[in-house]
Parts: sequence; structure tokens; C-alpha cells
Amino acid sequence: MNTNAPIIKKIRENSPLVHNITNYVVMNNTANALLAIGASPVMAHAVEEIDDIVSISSSLVINMGTLSEKWIESMLIAVKRAKELNKPIVFDPVGVGASKYRTETAKKIIESAIPDVIRGNASEIMALAEIANTTKGVDSTAQSEDAVTAAQKLSKKLNNTIVISGEVDFVITHEVINEIRGGSSLMSAVTGMGCTATSIIGACIGVESDYHLASCAAMDAMGQAGSKAEKLSNGPGSFQMNFLDCLQSLN
Amino acid sequence: MNTNAPIIKKIRENSPLVHNITNYVVMNNTANALLAIGASPVMAHAVEEIDDIVSISSSLVINMGTLSEKWIESMLIAVKRAKELNKPIVFDPVGVGASKYRTETAKKIIESAIPDVIRGNASEIMALAEIANTTKGVDSTAQSEDAVTAAQKLSKKLNNTIVISGEVDFVITHEVINEIRGGSSLMSAVTGMGCTATSIIGACIGVESDYHLASCAAMDAMGQAGSKAEKLSNGPGSFQMNFLDCLQSLN
Amino acid sequence: MNTNAPIIKKIRENSPLVHNITNYVVMNNTANALLAIGASPVMAHAVEEIDDIVSISSSLVINMGTLSEKWIESMLIAVKRAKELNKPIVFDPVGVGASKYRTETAKKIIESAIPDVIRGNASEIMALAEIANTTKGVDSTAQSEDAVTAAQKLSKKLNNTIVISGEVDFVITHEVINEIRGGSSLMSAVTGMGCTATSIIGACIGVESDYHLASCAAMDAMGQAGSKAEKLSNGPGSFQMNFLDCLQSLN
Repeated sequence: MNTNAPIIKKIRENSPLVHNITNYVVMNNTANALLAIGASPVMAHAVEEIDDIVSISSSLVINMGTLSEKWIESMLIAVKRAKELNKPIVFDPVGVGASKYRTETAKKIIESAIPDVIRGNASEIMALAEIANTTKGVDSTAQSEDAVTAAQKLSKKLNNTIVISGEVDFVITHEVINEIRGGSSLMSAVTGMGCTATSIIGACIGVESDYHLASCAAMDAMGQAGSKAEKLSNGPGSFQMNFLDCLQSLN
Repeated sequence: MNTNAPIIKKIRENSPLVHNITNYVVMNNTANALLAIGASPVMAHAVEEIDDIVSISSSLVINMGTLSEKWIESMLIAVKRAKELNKPIVFDPVGVGASKYRTETAKKIIESAIPDVIRGNASEIMALAEIANTTKGVDSTAQSEDAVTAAQKLSKKLNNTIVISGEVDFVITHEVINEIRGGSSLMSAVTGMGCTATSIIGACIGVESDYHLASCAAMDAMGQAGSKAEKLSNGPGSFQMNFLDCLQSLN
Repeated sequence: MNTNAPIIKKIRENSPLVHNITNYVVMNNTANALLAIGASPVMAHAVEEIDDIVSISSSLVINMGTLSEKWIESMLIAVKRAKELNKPIVFDPVGVGASKYRTETAKKIIESAIPDVIRGNASEIMALAEIANTTKGVDSTAQSEDAVTAAQKLSKKLNNTIVISGEVDFVITHEVINEIRGGSSLMSAVTGMGCTATSIIGACIGVESDYHLASCAAMDAMGQAGSKAEKLSNGPGSFQMNFLDCLQSLN
């Protein structure tokens, strides 16, 4: 595939403001990845300013990696407001299935406003699809085949795009499945690469209204940058650095 | 300019404790930058310990990048306490103008205790000066000329130093304008370089009571480290790494 | 010493889930260090999910670098629950002695459930041992000899393992003192290397029930990775990157 070129170009021309309500661990990484791809990140989680920030943003990224009551309240307000204003939403259900709290929060978010794109690993997508499944933190141990089936069902129910990250990435609607290859095994040795993918999807849906196509472009950009970075790296530390350099120099 | 040498030397000799109440995105970067310049960072935001931490610190950095009620409460207590104890304060009004919440918070902080130095990009400084202006997240789209005029008015009103970061940095009082060149275009491709500048100002005002001179030294150090780092870097990832190395090896 | 080989091997085979309730500054660093050593990090601090996350984890890391009421509440629930379930706990009393709030919180944590391992710098360990001592933020200015004596007393009282990080690391019970050399002077120029050591201890006690031995292995791994990384680095920025690469390539 090489779907990403025009979308990445549009990001660089328009510098969409991407509103992130995300977790503490990856905020810095995702802000830097958004800058590297050409978008403009804003992190804002206070209930008091959600309306204002959603209004000026091109898209909304919701990531539940480090939850607490106030943040959930903000997430729910943000997705509703984004939906009212027709701003696209991407949702990253980090660790769904690992605790009842995360599972319930993911449900609440989806019930408040269906995200246009959901990205997770195989375990998370299966947990989200309410298929019986155990998830070990943020790692994926589920088989990707089961996850694809689960994602198709989920996509049909929600009428949206589901992205499964893994060795091969799948971008799924109930009618279409795109497989995206590329990337590096080092990506699973760096924290927050999945969250970064979600943010890059946020940038792509901020400039491209075909969210399935936008998600393919995002995952393709991740894969390309990951492959290039791997060749320059000696381990996860240097990979993290080279990944940003490669993301910026794409195309 | 080469005003920074004696001030940087003093930081390295005295290792001032710099108290930061800052945003989640940049905490790690600014802590590392403070260590690289020779200062000793402390991040503490609980109302319960503000008094103790302000008391043992040499200066206070307030950065409103990721606001919420509890944090604002702490910021207000901290600036008042710092003023009582004659500890210098630098304030970074991240995103002021992007939401009513940020604008009101910036006003509250300034009304509680006038910061000795305020650093922002052109848009933020203009928003702060209550000149009609739209700001797009944390980016600067305002013209620097207008911002300089706004900063002079603001400086006159507050009787303090205003720093505008950009391609050229301006360190401004109502009587003096210093232009500081250097740095790198990669600085705007890395999140939190502005916040880092604010923290380095925090280190400089912690050892130098002429806050205008201290601010010039800080911006000069940022520019020098940025210029050197650019020559060693292939993109924003490697720049971020090299910037810390260069900051530590200054002089 | 070369005690770490079998323990690091076990981490890589079992990929223990390490539950961290830690500070905002270092979350990204410690998650990456845990991945590099072969463990699986989870960061979760909401009271609502503590029980679930403790239950599925192999060990618990409590780090009080950036405290607030809600987080303390979670820490207290987590240590009690971990103790009930016989999950090993390592505690990092960041900045204890720098504020009454931190001192009181450290006491509360220890009174709720005695951590199996406590790791700090000399000042922190002395403060914890209630020896009169002043601590300057997170830096160590105390003499390591006094700290060793303090640690022995503390270890005797708590019947656990105390680790003092510094130029030489000490792993202490009231009966045994292990000195571990290695590392790099650059480690004190990077924020959160102490917190990283604590997390690596968390990984080791997750697979090795001799917590003293596990702590020695962790500090030895830190020292080895630090020594190697120093040779590849030009300053704290490149050191931070190389450290992760070296941690991953240990053995």
C-alpha cells in the first residue's frame, strides 16, 4: 500500500490541531509524534476547558491508559461534544479487560459517542468485542485471527473502523479488511508505540473524512517509519529516537 | 551576546533547587534540562507540601500546560508563598487564549503575585496583554512585532521581564529590548522546548537577582545548545537527545 | 558479582507484569526500562482498579515522587492488597524529608504494609530511618557511611532489604551488606535513574523470592548497563538512550 502520501501531505499543509486526552506515560511521545508528522498537538483534560478545546480542534484522541474519575468525566464530555460538532474521534481502549474499571469505562465512552476509529491490540479489541478473553496488561497474547473476527463484528455493530496493531496491522470495517505490513519488532519494546499509532490516526482523520483510508495511511506511516528506524537502531532507546526522525522525514 | 557564562557557572557551582509546578507533557524534559544546566529540579504540586518545597527552593517555575482545579489551587498558593519569601517566579502561560479557562487562570496567577519573568510565544504574550488575538494551541502565528509592542506594555504594567520565544527571542522590559539569535528550526518540532526555556530561566533567576540579565542568559544558553544540537541531528528525535548533551557541555 | 544472569533470564522468560504507582516525571522512563529488561509494565493508580491490577501483577512498585491525596489513597490500598496476596512490594520514598507531607506519607505506607525492599539515596534512607538529616530535593548529600548504618537499623526494624543508590550501591539487610560497583557519573545527570532502579528491582522480585538477591541482581544490571552506556555517550541525552539499548542487550 502507499495510501499515505496525499494524507500525510495534507497534514503537513494544514497542521491540524489534534486534541488528546491521553495517559501520563505517553503524552510526551505522542505530542512529539504528532509534531513529527506535521500536526499540532494539544493536551487538555480539565472539564472546564473541554468545550473550548474540542471546538478549535480538528480531531479528538481518547486514550484510557491511566484512568481516574476526573479524567473519565472529561473524556465523556469530550466525545459527546466532538460528536455534536462533527469532529472525528479515535479511541484507544488501553488495557480494556485488565480491570472491571477499564472495561466499564470503555463501554461508557462508546455508549456516549461511537468513536469513528478504535485502535487496540488483539486482546483489547477482543475484550472490547465482549468475546471472552484474558488480557495481560497492555500486551497482546490473543491470536490475531480471532481478533479480526471480533473486530468485524464490533465494526458492524458500531459502523466504524477498527484497527488492530500487531506484527501485521489490520484496518477493518465489517466489509473491508486491510492488512498493513512493515514496522519493527522493536516497536513492542518501546512503551506507547500503540498510543502513538492512535495519535497519528488522530492526525489523519483530522484532514481526511474517509476514516478507513485515514487509518490505513496512519498505520502505513507508522510501519514505514518503524522499518526505517529499525535499520538505524541498536535497541529500544535508539529506536525511539530514530522513529521520530523517520516519521518527520517520511516522503 | 555572551552574558550567560558567569550565570551558568554560578548555576553549576550552587546547583539551585528549582521548584516546578508544570505540565505532564514536559516534566521529564524540563527535569533533564535543569540537570543538564547544573540545577536541581523538584516537581511538587500537592497543596499540602507547597509551603515546604517553596521554602527550600531557589526559584519557582509555574507552567499551565495541563491545567486542572487542584493544580491551579497549588499554583496560586505557590506564587503567593514565593512572593512572601522573595523567591523569584517565572511563569509560562501555555495556551493562554486557547480557552477561557486558561485565560482566567493566567489572570488569577498574575493577580495573586506578579511573576518576575513571563515567557511565552508571540500569541501567548499577546493574549496575555489582552490584545485581541487568536491562538492556535501552543503554536505562535502572531507577528513578533505586534508581540514586542504588547510585551512592552505588559512589562510596564507589571514591572517585570517578558520573554518572547520564536525564531528570534526577545527579552523585554518597558525600557530595554534584547534580541537573542541562535537556536534551530528543529526546536519547534520538539514538544516542550518553550517549557524547557522557562525552566532554564528558573535556574538562572535562582542564582542571579537581575532577572532581565538572567533571562537573557537562559535564552542565550537555549540558543547555543540548540544551534550546536542541530548540527548533530537528523530530525526531532535526535535533536532532543543532542540538545541535552549540548546543554550540559556549554562552556 | 554476577548474580543477575539467572534472574534476568527468568524475567525474559516469564515477562512478569509489574504494577507501578509512580510519579509523572519518570513513568515513561520506567516503563521503557521494564520493557528493556524483559518485564511487562502496567501503570494504574485509580482506587477503583487497584484490586484488579494488583491481583494480576507479579509485583508492586510504589514511588512517591509526585504525591497528591488521591494517589496516596491508592498507594495505601495497593500495598495492603499486595501484602494480602503475597505480592512483593518495592518502595521508593522520593524526597522523604524534603517536606512533612512526604515524610508522613512514607510513614503511612510503611505502617500499612512493610515493603519487601526500599530503595533510596543516602539522604532518603537516613530520613526514613528517622535520623536527623536534611535532604535537598531528590539529591543525596549525606555520607554513605552514616546511611549504611541507618539502613541496617531500618532493615532490622522492618525485617526487609534496604538499597542505597550512589556512586557505590549498597544492598542491605541487618545481617548482610552487599556493595555493588559499576554505573556511571552520568546517571545522576539524568532524571529518574533512581526510580528506574526501583522499577528494575520490581521486575526482579517479581520472579525471585529471595528479595535480597533480587535487589542485588537489579542493581548489578543497572550498573552494567550504566557502565556500557557511558562509553557510548556524549552527555545525559545520549546516555539516557544508550542506557535502554544496553539494558536490553545485557547478557
